[in-house]
Amino acid sequence: MDHTTVSPASTAGLTLTSALRNAVSRWGNRTFLRIDGTDVTFAEFDEGVGRLAAGLRARCGVGRGDRVAVFLRNSLLCEHTWFAANRLGATWVPINTEFRGLGLETAVRLADARVFFVDADLRAPLEESLARCGSDATVVVNGAAAALQAEDLYLDEPVPPVEVSGSDLSALLYTSGTTGRSKACMLSHRYFVSQAAIAVQDFGLTADDVLYCPFPLFHADATALTTVPALLLGATGAIGRRFSASRFWQEVRDTGATVFDFMGATLSILWKADPRPDDADNSVRLAWGVPVPEWAPEFERRFGLTIVELYGSVEASIPITQRWDQPRVPGSCGRVTSGFEVRIADENDHEVPAGEVGELLVRAKSPDLMFSGYHCDPAATVAATRNLWFHSGDLARVDEDGNFYFVGRKKEAIRRRGENISAFEVEEGIRQHAAVLDCAAFGVPSDLTEEEIKIAVVLKEGHDASAEEIWQFSLDTMARFQVPRYVEIVAALPVTPTGKIEKFRLRESPFTASTMEFEPPRVAVS
Amino acid sequence: MDHTTVSPASTAGLTLTSALRNAVSRWGNRTFLRIDGTDVTFAEFDEGVGRLAAGLRARCGVGRGDRVAVFLRNSLLCEHTWFAANRLGATWVPINTEFRGLGLETAVRLADARVFFVDADLRAPLEESLARCGSDATVVVNGAAAALQAEDLYLDEPVPPVEVSGSDLSALLYTSGTTGRSKACMLSHRYFVSQAAIAVQDFGLTADDVLYCPFPLFHADATALTTVPALLLGATGAIGRRFSASRFWQEVRDTGATVFDFMGATLSILWKADPRPDDADNSVRLAWGVPVPEWAPEFERRFGLTIVELYGSVEASIPITQRWDQPRVPGSCGRVTSGFEVRIADENDHEVPAGEVGELLVRAKSPDLMFSGYHCDPAATVAATRNLWFHSGDLARVDEDGNFYFVGRKKEAIRRRGENISAFEVEEGIRQHAAVLDCAAFGVPSDLTEEEIKIAVVLKEGHDASAEEIWQFSLDTMARFQVPRYVEIVAALPVTPTGKIEKFRLRESPFTASTMEFEPPRVAVS
Repeated sequence: MDHTTVSPASTAGLTLTSALRNAVSRWGNRTFLRIDGTDVTFAEFDEGVGRLAAGLRARCGVGRGDRVAVFLRNSLLCEHTWFAANRLGATWVPINTEFRGLGLETAVRLADARVFFVDADLRAPLEESLARCGSDATVVVNGAAAALQAEDLYLDEPVPPVEVSGSDLSALLYTSGTTGRSKACMLSHRYFVSQAAIAVQDFGLTADDVLYCPFPLFHADATALTTVPALLLGATGAIGRRFSASRFWQEVRDTGATVFDFMGATLSILWKADPRPDDADNSVRLAWGVPVPEWAPEFERRFGLTIVELYGSVEASIPITQRWDQPRVPGSCGRVTSGFEVRIADENDHEVPAGEVGELLVRAKSPDLMFSGYHCDPAATVAATRNLWFHSGDLARVDEDGNFYFVGRKKEAIRRRGENISAFEVEEGIRQHAAVLDCAAFGVPSDLTEEEIKIAVVLKEGHDASAEEIWQFSLDTMARFQVPRYVEIVAALPVTPTGKIEKFRLRESPFTASTMEFEPPRVAVS
Repeated sequence: MDHTTVSPASTAGLTLTSALRNAVSRWGNRTFLRIDGTDVTFAEFDEGVGRLAAGLRARCGVGRGDRVAVFLRNSLLCEHTWFAANRLGATWVPINTEFRGLGLETAVRLADARVFFVDADLRAPLEESLARCGSDATVVVNGAAAALQAEDLYLDEPVPPVEVSGSDLSALLYTSGTTGRSKACMLSHRYFVSQAAIAVQDFGLTADDVLYCPFPLFHADATALTTVPALLLGATGAIGRRFSASRFWQEVRDTGATVFDFMGATLSILWKADPRPDDADNSVRLAWGVPVPEWAPEFERRFGLTIVELYGSVEASIPITQRWDQPRVPGSCGRVTSGFEVRIADENDHEVPAGEVGELLVRAKSPDLMFSGYHCDPAATVAATRNLWFHSGDLARVDEDGNFYFVGRKKEAIRRRGENISAFEVEEGIRQHAAVLDCAAFGVPSDLTEEEIKIAVVLKEGHDASAEEIWQFSLDTMARFQVPRYVEIVAALPVTPTGKIEKFRLRESPFTASTMEFEPPRVAVS
C-alpha cells in the first residue's frame, strides 16, 4: 500500500483504532516502530496496547471521554499510552517535557486527566504541579520503583477496542506557544488519519519507507506525520529519543531511514557541519519540513536526497504542500492540498489580490480535517475562527499559479515607521553570512519610531564575527529597511523543544550589556 | 435603482452610514419611511439622525464602540436611534419589548449599554432590570416628561458620521429564543447591507416599491429586509406599529404597500378570514416569508399577489431564497443564494446524499455576510460553529436540483420509538382541518417509548371541533407515525413577539385537565 492507494478520501472511514486493527490483520509481522533501540511489529504493538488498556481500565478506571496525560520522553511506552487511551474511548494528552513551573501547572490543569504517566526523573515537577492544581489523578511512574509503575498496568489479557467515530477526540496537543501561553488543540481521529494520508499522497510515501523522526511525541511530526503514515502504509516509523546534530546521520544509518523531517534550525545545523566525503552515502531519499532555505538545492546534492516543503500547524493540519512529484517552486511552501481551502486576506478577512501579503486563512472541505477547537478555551477558539475561517496568524502571499509563500508570523512582524517588516525575511538575510549559524529578528521599543529591529545572532562553532561585521554585511546585502539597529551575538537562542525560537523571551530583555547599537543607514531624500 | 443594479457584489463597499449618505445625495426628497402616520424623506431622516447623534454624543458621551440600547416599540425615534448610534461608531441594541423579569434582566445585562431609550409606559420594568443589574446607564424616556426626554437629545447641529468599515458592528439582535434563552447576535454593517441586497435581487424589489412590515424593529424583517432595502433602492419602508389581522389590509391600502412580509401564523390568519369581494383589490404584488403553506396558490389568486419563500435566521442571514423570477417548487424554501454555501449534514457534519434529512449548515463565501458570533458568549458561538460551519439547528433536505426543503427544528423533533418525527410536518397535517387556525406539535414524556406526540390546537373563530374530531382527522389523513396520542384545544398558543411559538412553554405543562388521550393506532404486524 502506498501513495497510490492511501489518500484522504480512501481513509475517510478510518479511526486510529480501526487503522491499527487493519494493519495487524494485513501486516501483523512487519516492523511498525523502531524505537527504544528495538523493532516492534504491528501485532506486538497491538498486543502491548491492548494489555496496557486493560490495566488503565482495571486499575485506573479509564473509560470513554476520560483523558490520559503523559509527561514522557519518546519511548514505546509513550506510543502505547496514546493507542491504549484511544482504545478505551479516552483522549491522550502528551505534555511538553520541557514545561516547568507555571507553564507545566497550566498544562496539567488544562489536561484535567484521570491518569498521568511520568518518566521517573520528571516526577518531582509533575507532582508539584498536580499538588498545586489540587489534582487527585493517579500517577504512573516509568523507569523506577513506585506505588504504581507503568509495567504494572500491562495485564495479561488485552481488552478489545470500544467503538469510536472519526469525530471523537484522539489527542490534545499543546500549541508550541512561541507567541504566548500554550493552548490545547482538540484533535480527532479523523484529523490524524487525514493528515497522515495527505503526507503519504503528497510526499509519495510507500510501504518500504522508514520514516525517521527525532522530535518529541507531543508534537504533530512524530505522531500525525510519522507514526500514523507508517500505520496506514504498513511502513516503519523510527522514533528517535531526541534530535542531536552530532548523532543525526549515524541514527539515520542505524535505523535505515529513507525519509526524515526537519524543523527550525535542523537543516541549517546539518548544512553548516563540516562536509565529509560520505555525506551522500545514506539511505535517505526524501526530507520534508520547514523552513526550506535558499541553499536547498546544494543541500540536496550534498546529501543525495530531495527536500519537500509544506505549510502546516497543529490547528490547520497541512493545507499546503509541495507535492513530491512536481517541480519545486523556489521560496514557495507549495499549493493547496486536497480537502482544503486557503485564502490570503486583509485585516477584515477580505481576499487580497495575488502577490499581496495578507494573513493566511484556512478551511477544510469536510469535517474533522482540522483541529476541533482549543480545549476549554472557547474565547480563543472564537478569536481564531472569525468569519468561519481559521486564522493562522501567519503572513503569506500567493502567486497567479497558486503557489504560496510564507512571509512571517503576523505577531512577529516588526512595526517601524508605519511599515510591517517581516522578521522572517530579516533572518533569512542575516543567515547568508558564512559565520552565522542561526539568528532571530524582533522588534524592540524605539523613542523615534514604533519599533526598531534587533537581531540576536548565534555563530557557527569555530567561526568568529563581530556585531559590526554582521551589521555591515546586512547593510551591504539587504534592503535598507531590513538593516537592524541593534545586533547582539549570543551563545544560543531560547527555543521550544520543537526547535521554534521563543521570541517573547528575547523581547523580555531587549537591551543587554552586549547589545550593540548602530547608526541607521541614511536614506537619500531627493 | 432596482434589482438589476443592487446586488451583494455592487454593495460590497457600503456601510449603513455611507448608504444613507448616498441615498440623501441621490434621492433626498423621496419618501424613505412611512411611519408614525407620517412620511419622512431621506434628507429629513438624515437630519434627524444627525441631530440625535449630536445629543447622544454631547449629553450621553456616546462614542465608538459604545452600545445604545432601546426598549421601544416601532417608531421613527426607534429608527433614528439605530442610525444615530451607528453614526457615532456605536452599536444599536433593540430589546424585545415583550421581555419582562429575568428575560429582560438578562438582555439588559448583555446589552451593557451606555444609554437606554424607553417608551414611557415601559419605563418601570426597564428601570427595575437596570437596578437589578447595578447599571448606571443613562435612561432616555420617549413620550412623557422625564429627567432626560428623547426630544432633548435632538440638538440643532447634526454631527457628521465617523468612519466605519463593513466589519464594524451595526447592531446586536437577540435570537427569538424559541428553544431557550435569547442570545445577542453581533451583526455588522456588511451583514445588513448584504442581506438587504439579496432581498432586492432575489425578490426583484425596485425603487417604486413600498415595503410594508408590521413586525418589530428588534428583528431582521423590519430592519435588514425592509428599512435597508428601501435605503439601497431609494424606495419606501412602511413600518407598522404592530401586526393586526383586522387592520392588516386597511394598513396595506393606507400605506400603498406593494410588498409585505409574513411569519409564523400571519398568512394562515389572513387566509382563514372570511373572503370578501374586494380581497384582490389591493396594491400588493409580492409577499415573502415563512412558512409558505400548501394552499399558497389559492392565497395568491384570492389576494392577487405572488408569494416568495426563503430560509433564514438572524445568525445565517438569508442563504436560501426562491427567486421571484423563477417558478416556485412546491414545498421548497428555495435554492442557495449568491455568496453562500449550504450543506445538509449528519450528526458528525458529513454531507448526506440528496433527499436525506440532516441538519442545515451554512457558510458565507465572503466575510461579514453572517453574524459575527454571540455577544459575550464564545461558548455558544463555538457550539454553533463546529467544523467552521454555522449549525442552524434546522432539519432539512435538498433534492437533486438544489431545491431545499425545511423539515423542522432539530431540537423540536419528537423522538418516538427510535425515530425522529418532524413537529413541522405534524402541524402541517393538522392545519389542513377546516376548523384549525393554528397548532403546535411537541413531544411529551412517555412511559412506553421516548416521547409521544401531543398537539395543541387553536380553532378558527366561529368554528367548532372536538379533540376527537381533530384526532380522527389526523388518523384519516396523516401518516400513522404522525398521529398524536394527545390532543388539546387551546384558546391561544404562547408566541414570541415575532409570532414564533414558544414550545418550551407548552412542554412545561404537558398534561392538563383538558388534554385528551387517544388510543394509538394499531400498526398491522404481518
